[in-house]
Amino acid sequence: MEPVFPFDLVLPERGEGTLTEALHRQLRAAILEGRLAAGSSLPATRRAAAALGIARNTVTNVYDLLVAEGCLQSRRGAKPVVSPIARPATPRMRSIRPAGARLLSRAWRRPFARFEPSANPAGQSFRLGIPEHRYFPHETWRRLSARALRALARQPFRYPPTEGIAELRGAIAQHVAFTRAVSCRADDVIVTSGAQQAFDLVARMLVTPGETTVVVEEPGYPPLLAAFAGAGARLVPVTVDEEGLCVGRLPAAARIVCVTPSHQAPTGVALSLQRRLALLEFARANDAVILEDDYDGEFLFGGRPIDALQMLDRDGRVFYVGTFSKSLFPGLRKGYVVSPAWAREALTAVKHCADSHSDLVTQSMLAAFIREGHLARHIRRMRALYAERREALLDGLAHELSGWLEPIPAEVGLFLGTRIRDPAAAHALIAKARIATPGVASHADYAMRADCPPGLSFGYGVIDAKEIGSRLAGLRRALGR
Amino acid sequence: MEPVFPFDLVLPERGEGTLTEALHRQLRAAILEGRLAAGSSLPATRRAAAALGIARNTVTNVYDLLVAEGCLQSRRGAKPVVSPIARPATPRMRSIRPAGARLLSRAWRRPFARFEPSANPAGQSFRLGIPEHRYFPHETWRRLSARALRALARQPFRYPPTEGIAELRGAIAQHVAFTRAVSCRADDVIVTSGAQQAFDLVARMLVTPGETTVVVEEPGYPPLLAAFAGAGARLVPVTVDEEGLCVGRLPAAARIVCVTPSHQAPTGVALSLQRRLALLEFARANDAVILEDDYDGEFLFGGRPIDALQMLDRDGRVFYVGTFSKSLFPGLRKGYVVSPAWAREALTAVKHCADSHSDLVTQSMLAAFIREGHLARHIRRMRALYAERREALLDGLAHELSGWLEPIPAEVGLFLGTRIRDPAAAHALIAKARIATPGVASHADYAMRADCPPGLSFGYGVIDAKEIGSRLAGLRRALGR
Repeated sequence: MEPVFPFDLVLPERGEGTLTEALHRQLRAAILEGRLAAGSSLPATRRAAAALGIARNTVTNVYDLLVAEGCLQSRRGAKPVVSPIARPATPRMRSIRPAGARLLSRAWRRPFARFEPSANPAGQSFRLGIPEHRYFPHETWRRLSARALRALARQPFRYPPTEGIAELRGAIAQHVAFTRAVSCRADDVIVTSGAQQAFDLVARMLVTPGETTVVVEEPGYPPLLAAFAGAGARLVPVTVDEEGLCVGRLPAAARIVCVTPSHQAPTGVALSLQRRLALLEFARANDAVILEDDYDGEFLFGGRPIDALQMLDRDGRVFYVGTFSKSLFPGLRKGYVVSPAWAREALTAVKHCADSHSDLVTQSMLAAFIREGHLARHIRRMRALYAERREALLDGLAHELSGWLEPIPAEVGLFLGTRIRDPAAAHALIAKARIATPGVASHADYAMRADCPPGLSFGYGVIDAKEIGSRLAGLRRALGR
Repeated sequence: MEPVFPFDLVLPERGEGTLTEALHRQLRAAILEGRLAAGSSLPATRRAAAALGIARNTVTNVYDLLVAEGCLQSRRGAKPVVSPIARPATPRMRSIRPAGARLLSRAWRRPFARFEPSANPAGQSFRLGIPEHRYFPHETWRRLSARALRALARQPFRYPPTEGIAELRGAIAQHVAFTRAVSCRADDVIVTSGAQQAFDLVARMLVTPGETTVVVEEPGYPPLLAAFAGAGARLVPVTVDEEGLCVGRLPAAARIVCVTPSHQAPTGVALSLQRRLALLEFARANDAVILEDDYDGEFLFGGRPIDALQMLDRDGRVFYVGTFSKSLFPGLRKGYVVSPAWAREALTAVKHCADSHSDLVTQSMLAAFIREGHLARHIRRMRALYAERREALLDGLAHELSGWLEPIPAEVGLFLGTRIRDPAAAHALIAKARIATPGVASHADYAMRADCPPGLSFGYGVIDAKEIGSRLAGLRRALGR
């Protein structure tokens, strides 16, 4: 018998909530993520109930809920049809024409771009930027949560310090020194609400609207760009080639250069040592600062790592931004800036404007997680797992797709970039890849200009080694047709 | 025998961590909070050890730790001396002359004001803005945490939506409808990192730097002011009198009016209904918007509450900001904006720039806490507790201090304001009150101009009814001298 739904539904075990809730949640997710295509009809309640071995009434209730939420459209006597409300399958910049524009600030009055990340992965995919949840030490995390909440219960409530609690700042200083050889003391660390808040605070502190020229990588990470655009920066995209950001092309007017030297987002290129030194020299000569975004540099696979820019900086010009979204999980919303001493006080004042301080309990949990060695252990374990996936990816690319895609060398991170060998065939290839290897990122989606060299990046945070092989083989078959 | 420390040290019970940790934590807090005055010397290790009945070595270790942290200064052969690092006992605006100013944006290049909240209360105090921790349902909160973390473990990691998770937005809509009669749907709610982020997002969305005129209350809440100043607003302070903000004095140029209508911060005045209607009419006539900060309006004591401004708004001009810092706890860092529909998309885009989204686990916990009725129950219980304290405060003011202080009528909130009857004697009175009734807030500390009518506000979040009486009697004795 053919399955009635184009994906597996998981019926709950005892104690995991009702059947209705479980079905509702899964169908809703499938509709929002586009796994159930808009316009397609769902099986009749009788057929679905029989196939799943559950009461027809349960299916009817779930359909009614979905209709009430606008996920399904019901037509009298006919099978319900999926509404066109899925989130996009690929990230994109959407142009928004604001309502009530006359009341908005000048910056937001014009149509503005809003980055829409792709839908959260449905099962395994090549989606970038999301780590594996299955091997996370959830039990340890729960234990630390219970401990932090017991400590909360023992003391009067208080407002935590704006720059972060001392325990966490100390733990982060120790962590970056150990994993990335970044030299800093606890005092240099400001805890932020993810890397995004770090970008935003630095942008607001340094950008004079309409005046300050800021270099971003082309292609580059759109949310960083949005933070600087939102602060009123004049953005200048500078090309990335096989050695990373083309430092020779930086405009002399650049006051801030944003760069992902360990693992360029989204191509995966490493900034060469020569370019690093040239970039630091540029900053010195032009009185500029550098924002170093090191989002997944903890995951090193052999090779000798190139030092963080921050470590080479002798002049207090580098803001080093890190995040726990990749080494732990994105919903945690914790990141940090290692700031030059001269900027620390202003940065803290901007953070105080922005949201006073970060939440106390999560800070305590994270501090304990680092201090007790769980983070180092977790990174070590995940590095081995990701290394295996990376090998599978490199193997698959070499054996199945070497005629079409050329891997971009990189020894680090949670994804691997490739160049498309034949730019003329890129459009068709990308379209097929989106189907055969869902979640894959086209470099053009991250570029401001149309002339970005075509490429694809494959994440391996949420896909097993075995699955990587079979999906790449599938892409090969699709391309061979 | 005289105590060796000017406050009680609590030695840990078995299983609560080591003696060294406990002593270190308590001495450190005492130094940072100014209970051990800068320059005073600590008892010699031998004497302290004997008085506390512990090993001398433990005391030595603790002193060494404190010296290493800079809390103590050690002098060979002499007793260690407390370093001058205590945080201020009263909130204040500190002017900061930025280092590296040439690299900062124009807004931060000039000396800027940084609000420094007063030190966290040492034991019971009249400090404003902090709720009672002793009756918080910590066990329920831990249970919901464990549940949210188990749910986290069952699903792939994902990036939560920028505007907040659907469950929490729905729960907040239901909560504000119930407690404050604010009319909204889940779609109108944007989850923020505390009320401060709500101020900041609204400011950034609406303020064109150097152009937009923003009215703030005088006296008013400094962190809100900092958010608008940071966004480049032209701030105009408008006086608060016995009916609240003097709406008749609003400049026609005002594009945004920030107001605390339920319980003016810090005087406690309620904005009269007439003024509310006049304010809405002003906004309509001048094409302005209103930011309604309703930070402790859930705590209503008898009387008929005046409706929220948002409820009277027929024209989509009110941004209603709420927080869980007072109804739950400040370290939670959760607040929200109920936004007019026209601004929702831009506000979400600004939030995405600012920090992408709020953390997932706390959102889930909070949604369940509201949905299952724990928040309503907790507020009800705390309202009874705070009502008792408020009565004690009103009694004490009437019986002990009616010659000096006149209570400002208010039926709501976590503190009570008073006017000082004799402005000429205000300076001396305030100085004595800071000692006899620590944590009390002088209205002048919240004012931009020097002509603010003198007043004191007494918080009752972290002080028992009995203690209120005895402290007010103490103030009376101090004034009688």
